[in-house]
Amino acid sequence: MLDNIRWLIPAQKDNQGENPEIIVSSRIRVARNLDSIPFEIKMKNDDALRLLELTRSVIKQRLKGKFYELQKLTPLEKESLLECHLISPGFIKKDSPVGVFINDKGNISVMINEEDHLRIQGLSGGLNLVNISEQVFDVEEVFGKELGYAFSENYGFLTSCPTNLGTGLRASVILHLPGLVFTNEVDKVLKGAVQIGMAVRGIYGEGSEIKGSLFQISNQYTLGLKEEELIEQIIKLTHMIIDIELKARDVILKKARYEFEDKVFRSLGVLKSARIISTDEVLNLLSALRFGIGMGLIKDIPLDLVNELLIVSRPANIQLYYGVVLEEYERDIRRAEYIRNRLNNPESHT
Amino acid sequence: MLDNIRWLIPAQKDNQGENPEIIVSSRIRVARNLDSIPFEIKMKNDDALRLLELTRSVIKQRLKGKFYELQKLTPLEKESLLECHLISPGFIKKDSPVGVFINDKGNISVMINEEDHLRIQGLSGGLNLVNISEQVFDVEEVFGKELGYAFSENYGFLTSCPTNLGTGLRASVILHLPGLVFTNEVDKVLKGAVQIGMAVRGIYGEGSEIKGSLFQISNQYTLGLKEEELIEQIIKLTHMIIDIELKARDVILKKARYEFEDKVFRSLGVLKSARIISTDEVLNLLSALRFGIGMGLIKDIPLDLVNELLIVSRPANIQLYYGVVLEEYERDIRRAEYIRNRLNNPESHT
Repeated sequence: MLDNIRWLIPAQKDNQGENPEIIVSSRIRVARNLDSIPFEIKMKNDDALRLLELTRSVIKQRLKGKFYELQKLTPLEKESLLECHLISPGFIKKDSPVGVFINDKGNISVMINEEDHLRIQGLSGGLNLVNISEQVFDVEEVFGKELGYAFSENYGFLTSCPTNLGTGLRASVILHLPGLVFTNEVDKVLKGAVQIGMAVRGIYGEGSEIKGSLFQISNQYTLGLKEEELIEQIIKLTHMIIDIELKARDVILKKARYEFEDKVFRSLGVLKSARIISTDEVLNLLSALRFGIGMGLIKDIPLDLVNELLIVSRPANIQLYYGVVLEEYERDIRRAEYIRNRLNNPESHT
Repeated sequence: MLDNIRWLIPAQKDNQGENPEIIVSSRIRVARNLDSIPFEIKMKNDDALRLLELTRSVIKQRLKGKFYELQKLTPLEKESLLECHLISPGFIKKDSPVGVFINDKGNISVMINEEDHLRIQGLSGGLNLVNISEQVFDVEEVFGKELGYAFSENYGFLTSCPTNLGTGLRASVILHLPGLVFTNEVDKVLKGAVQIGMAVRGIYGEGSEIKGSLFQISNQYTLGLKEEELIEQIIKLTHMIIDIELKARDVILKKARYEFEDKVFRSLGVLKSARIISTDEVLNLLSALRFGIGMGLIKDIPLDLVNELLIVSRPANIQLYYGVVLEEYERDIRRAEYIRNRLNNPESHT
């Protein structure tokens, strides 16, 4: 049934590195523009069509994977691409012709005619920025050689928005930080990250409404540092935050062991039992479950399955999974069914 | 381990009659006073001691069971007798010498020197008022023949409080009415009961704070009707209320099937998973579980076990069950452990 979601990323489930229950995934994206086509602000419809044509021909000759014209996808499929982190929210809303390429392994996607002509991104489970950046730059080189990028000796790569000028690179990791949320330390740590030039945001929800204790850490600036230096900064910060998270977990084990175990096992009990369940509730229950796996309390549920549940239970994906369009109420019922079946038979159809 | 609670009532678990998931239990009690000893209001300490001596000698010669002087029990044991519905709240607080007899089967208890000299009560699972009243009156006759009751040709049996005058009989049934609670009809039904001379109250909590959807229905008046007529009235009212409850359940199945199933299975999931759980939460979760069993949703958990969990999870009983004195926090942990073990091995040590 997972085949119904044709772009579901196998690479995001491949999560075997250090602290896999804390480091959910890594992402690298580079912004590039062709020097032969006007930038977004001056672009006409013909320019957009030419951009699509040029990139499609490069893809056809040099890359393995699939190209989708967004206009030809159903609303559900577009939402699903977003839920799978393969395209951006702004990309869906664009009026001019846009397309997305997804490679065969499903770990590289290229948005064509987003804010920049090309947004090449790589996704991976765990802390894998160096490896994934190599793959992203391989693809970047292919387009660059064939089509020629807009580049300035003074600034580096030119971009639509000055915040991407220079390297055009954004590196990010998604971290699961329930210990910091539980001990109310998350604000302190995240403010510190901002002070050293990193952007931090909750993946689902904002401020005190952050759901699932999932946070994205990324570089705020793209200018003034080399690509490798930017990536190294993110890796260093990730290790620092993991240290604080692990200390918070020690405190929890010492001071609130039963409350913690109660929360973990109740969450698993509800996920295995519920007949109606919302996406928001799933986020929080899966967070407790991931926390329990990380602390060694739950041994028979693989993290891969938690990552799958997180993505597939999203509103559009759950409809694609079942192959039907569903109202919210029906989605809540089907979501509960899907999660129940998967948790009660964790070995089936992974 | 259940042996630690020496008076836990096997009869209350014996629940095989009509609508066993609605009719939890039946109770009959009669109030009697000896004509040879002053009534409570004029009673001195010596009178109380003589009353105890007289009744103990009758018990020794004529009845099979155990007699407990309340003063010799631990506070925990007294609370447990209350939680097992074998004595009344007022009985624990009395300063003068009091005692309680519990027969071998554990279904008849006699409070000696409660508000009246003797309060003889019989308990049974299901709707079993006629049968249990016969057993109560057998015991009543034994004491009456040996000791002589205060009786007036005009009024019948004389009691400390005029509300018990005449038959001295109170018949009651405990009903589980989650359908009426769920559909907000419970107030209407219960007000109707009061209008025809019946007293209705929640077993745990009052008003909108009623927990576990458990209600007791009993006769308000003891004068002017024969014993059999009083019992017949209660049985009729019970049948009427069951009809309305069953109709409410039909409505729920038609209009909110998934919400209902969700509530039932989540409740079972939490009971099987929690590591910390309060008595109040247990009441509500067990109510949903009983509802689910009654509707045929849950087939592998016997009602007897639900009744056991309801009684044994009470604060004093859970301490006696484990044989240790526990603070509230520790009780919540042990209660969760006990419930989890029993639900995951429903066949063991019943």
